[in-house]
Amino acid sequence: MILYSYWRSSASYRVRMALNLKRLDHEIRPVHLVRDGGEQFKENYSALNPQQLVPTLVDGDAVITQSMAMLEYLEERHPEPALLPRDPAGRARVRAIGQAIACDIHPLNNLRVLKYLTDTAGLDEQARLAWYRHWTESGLAAVERLLDSPSTGRFCHGDEPGLADCCLLPQVYNAERFECDMAPFARIRRICEALKSVPAVRDAMPENQPDAA
Amino acid sequence: MILYSYWRSSASYRVRMALNLKRLDHEIRPVHLVRDGGEQFKENYSALNPQQLVPTLVDGDAVITQSMAMLEYLEERHPEPALLPRDPAGRARVRAIGQAIACDIHPLNNLRVLKYLTDTAGLDEQARLAWYRHWTESGLAAVERLLDSPSTGRFCHGDEPGLADCCLLPQVYNAERFECDMAPFARIRRICEALKSVPAVRDAMPENQPDAA
Repeated sequence: MILYSYWRSSASYRVRMALNLKRLDHEIRPVHLVRDGGEQFKENYSALNPQQLVPTLVDGDAVITQSMAMLEYLEERHPEPALLPRDPAGRARVRAIGQAIACDIHPLNNLRVLKYLTDTAGLDEQARLAWYRHWTESGLAAVERLLDSPSTGRFCHGDEPGLADCCLLPQVYNAERFECDMAPFARIRRICEALKSVPAVRDAMPENQPDAA
Repeated sequence: MILYSYWRSSASYRVRMALNLKRLDHEIRPVHLVRDGGEQFKENYSALNPQQLVPTLVDGDAVITQSMAMLEYLEERHPEPALLPRDPAGRARVRAIGQAIACDIHPLNNLRVLKYLTDTAGLDEQARLAWYRHWTESGLAAVERLLDSPSTGRFCHGDEPGLADCCLLPQVYNAERFECDMAPFARIRRICEALKSVPAVRDAMPENQPDAA
């Protein structure tokens, strides 16, 4: 498998975590989102990923876009170790936590949106930062409430890292870069510390990528 | 099953389509997002849905948030008629089209975001509309490219409506409300016309809901 990835992209980070947790051999091909006007806009890459976003996962003939579709694909093709529990309600809970991040926090704060806010909508740097923090902090507050459950264990759901954790740690990495106030999120902070102690997770971190600046 | 839904919410519309396509008995409980400061903020509803968003699906003891998690849950609990194809690459394609909408178009344009842009970021009505159209039109252009594939049939994937269609039609409904230019999207327009001819889909439409204004 080949993962087209950018070291700081939190959607790429999700898939790197899943690949490593499942111990799947893969090659990382860096796509630099900033250099040279953005390598994601080049013809070769656009042909693979018509949204011109990272990541893209290539597995033989299958070219897969959208990080959440990749996590489900990896789970179906390589079920063990599992990223989702077995019971339907538990699976729904894990997916809902993942999507509370992947749908309701991350898309509001990725590079292209922040760029639009300043370059097109004319917001200044302070208003842009306020926007970032508003959606991240209110979104993480909702995730913290979803984690207030007996189903939460050492990780988001039970004692093994799973799909929700693959979304949580990258989002928190991002939040810390923008100096969000993480103090209110005791459960999230505890889970992220536990995740950072897992070698497969550490190997997926931005700073451990071949393209890290 | 009980679906807490708002007639105009496109995330609710997705789940209504799935419930109807699978012919599952359910009760719709309207949550009015505007009236009275927003019923989603009331204590009773917040206890069910800590994100204070619609929809919420209740199935016995299971309380499920996030519309995309609901679609997967319904597919796992009630596999027929299927909303996902059987092959992993096909499933990934359908999920990726769904998430190109659910992650990369819809979250940028829902009510709370549009409200923030005017009330907090100080954009005027014209700049807000430009924002809406920018993300919807560029997002639908990417979906149109994803649909340029031999896997596309009468619907997004083959000749039966599925998970991607449950995301597409509600997003197009929304785009039309904001008078986006749909002319460039021939495949999307054709698929939406086909969807509108399906009785189960018609029953899920906003104007056919008990709380339609």
